[in-house]
Amino acid sequence: MLLSAVPDARIVDVSHGVPPYDLLAGALLLEACVPWFPRQAVHLAVVDPGVGTSRRAICVVDPEGRTLVGPDNGLFTPFLREGARVYELSAPAVVPPPRGATFHGRDLFAPVAARLLAGLAPERLGPLVPDPVRLDWPAAERLAGEIRGVTLAADPFGNLVTSVREADLAGVQVRAALCDGRQARWVRTFADGAPGELLALVGGGGRVEIAVREGSAAAHLHRWRGVEVRLLLGAPPALGGPGSPC
Amino acid sequence: MLLSAVPDARIVDVSHGVPPYDLLAGALLLEACVPWFPRQAVHLAVVDPGVGTSRRAICVVDPEGRTLVGPDNGLFTPFLREGARVYELSAPAVVPPPRGATFHGRDLFAPVAARLLAGLAPERLGPLVPDPVRLDWPAAERLAGEIRGVTLAADPFGNLVTSVREADLAGVQVRAALCDGRQARWVRTFADGAPGELLALVGGGGRVEIAVREGSAAAHLHRWRGVEVRLLLGAPPALGGPGSPC
Amino acid sequence: MLLSAVPDARIVDVSHGVPPYDLLAGALLLEACVPWFPRQAVHLAVVDPGVGTSRRAICVVDPEGRTLVGPDNGLFTPFLREGARVYELSAPAVVPPPRGATFHGRDLFAPVAARLLAGLAPERLGPLVPDPVRLDWPAAERLAGEIRGVTLAADPFGNLVTSVREADLAGVQVRAALCDGRQARWVRTFADGAPGELLALVGGGGRVEIAVREGSAAAHLHRWRGVEVRLLLGAPPALGGPGSPC
Repeated sequence: MLLSAVPDARIVDVSHGVPPYDLLAGALLLEACVPWFPRQAVHLAVVDPGVGTSRRAICVVDPEGRTLVGPDNGLFTPFLREGARVYELSAPAVVPPPRGATFHGRDLFAPVAARLLAGLAPERLGPLVPDPVRLDWPAAERLAGEIRGVTLAADPFGNLVTSVREADLAGVQVRAALCDGRQARWVRTFADGAPGELLALVGGGGRVEIAVREGSAAAHLHRWRGVEVRLLLGAPPALGGPGSPC
Repeated sequence: MLLSAVPDARIVDVSHGVPPYDLLAGALLLEACVPWFPRQAVHLAVVDPGVGTSRRAICVVDPEGRTLVGPDNGLFTPFLREGARVYELSAPAVVPPPRGATFHGRDLFAPVAARLLAGLAPERLGPLVPDPVRLDWPAAERLAGEIRGVTLAADPFGNLVTSVREADLAGVQVRAALCDGRQARWVRTFADGAPGELLALVGGGGRVEIAVREGSAAAHLHRWRGVEVRLLLGAPPALGGPGSPC
Repeated sequence: MLLSAVPDARIVDVSHGVPPYDLLAGALLLEACVPWFPRQAVHLAVVDPGVGTSRRAICVVDPEGRTLVGPDNGLFTPFLREGARVYELSAPAVVPPPRGATFHGRDLFAPVAARLLAGLAPERLGPLVPDPVRLDWPAAERLAGEIRGVTLAADPFGNLVTSVREADLAGVQVRAALCDGRQARWVRTFADGAPGELLALVGGGGRVEIAVREGSAAAHLHRWRGVEVRLLLGAPPALGGPGSPC
């Protein structure tokens, strides 16, 4: 559909590995990938269990000018920041009526993405949406002496992405990490752990991750979403001291 | 191989997810995808358990002028309609002798696809094949008051594609569906069902599919091929009436 | 990252299917694929359990002039032949300091690959590396009357790639094959076996493979690495003769 409309479009398949129907995993993937694309890219994303229902179809233009097209079901939550504009895909002149009720990725989002790529102004797609759907997006909690979060999704290696963002660590020093009550060694990179050891570190997507060196944290913990993560702050206690977390 | 021969070729990887050796699943994937490509595309498809044997290699030009290249083993059955022309890949001047007996996708089909993309007339590839291999292709059966079919393949979500095409429903009204003897609610889109409920609907590939809302029909039924599907026709009976299918 | 730096780069995703952390499987994939690319391609490969540690990052220019970029951990062993030049990615003027310690594919290798693609001379990346890391690379053993090897990796079909290369068979005649002590029929292509039969043949990647017709040798043997393979040489004995391997 894209190449029929824009023969010289460059298409980058970011992933077909989002677990089916998992909006939060899809949103986290977009959060990690979209900022690294050239600004003029149009991002077409589909995790869409409500396809064909009355759920709206939208185009989001985030405050940095990035453009995303897809269902209005929370998938674009990371981009719905102050200053984002959201348009409903509804203007008959530029939005095709979908051929069927089950494949809007092909029948609706792709033709619209192609038009945007060819230069269509998002304003022409339809009216502004004042209340786009937002996922309940877990944030890190800052408590006395610690930051508390939760695991949100597993990547293909079994690393668990958490609700604690790199930015939440600005100005603090992590001295130890706990995941599901167990110690997770706070490290800079995967190979700083021993094989099989549970680790916590800042991952490439800009969030704290729980990992196992050359292994899968998801398999290690037998869980991958909703596991409590605690980052204990401050200088590490003297070896063997009373405050040692081990 | 393609880019070496045609540096500005646009390559679209439709799927690497066809189950190994599954010609019917491959043929259904082509049926669903090929019609959406620009007409000048050359389609290279390989599901080829007989690679290196005496099975022929062919180029199909279907009645709409679409061009496909691959093994003559039934993979192109949906395109072998009245008016299709099939050429054997055999002319030494334009068909390379394969380097080995195990990877014709790289050694034979790709070089030929590149030549076709570069403008070679299919007639130059070799003689017409009068009897290309066709899969035993299950069709829908129209009976009194119902259409009967069978499941053929599972998509990555576990939706089961059936032998009943959208076109088979022209002029009829489906009032209920049965799959493997159980009721499958006849709906317009996935979210019209309750979570976990067995559904029947017209899918994006132009065929009736059996699905489970936010779940897998293949897992639900513990089977994915050869399951009987019945679509009962006519207006729905009055609630509780004697003809109720439940 | 690549398209931001070189908008008209052609990107070919060879595989995302290498088992996590499996350097040998990654090296074998490169050995099988790289030679088929246009010579001017830049190959970016990442299997990198030591990302962010003191392991070096390198660019390899092999004797045929092929260029590869990635970690110095043995992944490029097949290209470290006599005459290969290896440069450390270290010159501040052309090598970006990685943003983090966990995703050098994006932060280090991709920017360098883009610069090479845009014409940067590899010599400008940093000093020559005299001792790049090499994997312990199993070779075939030539004994009296036989060639002995070992399985190294499984492909997505479950075919087992071995340490015996096609070149090792030059000038000899294989009369029978054994895998894990069991007979594996020596054939030219997959369909020369009976369904379910263990086979040995020369695969598309230029190595002897152990296969099962329309099945998985890995599943058949319940193992996929380190299985002994023996190719018995010479003319086959007369039927029923005393030297029969069955």
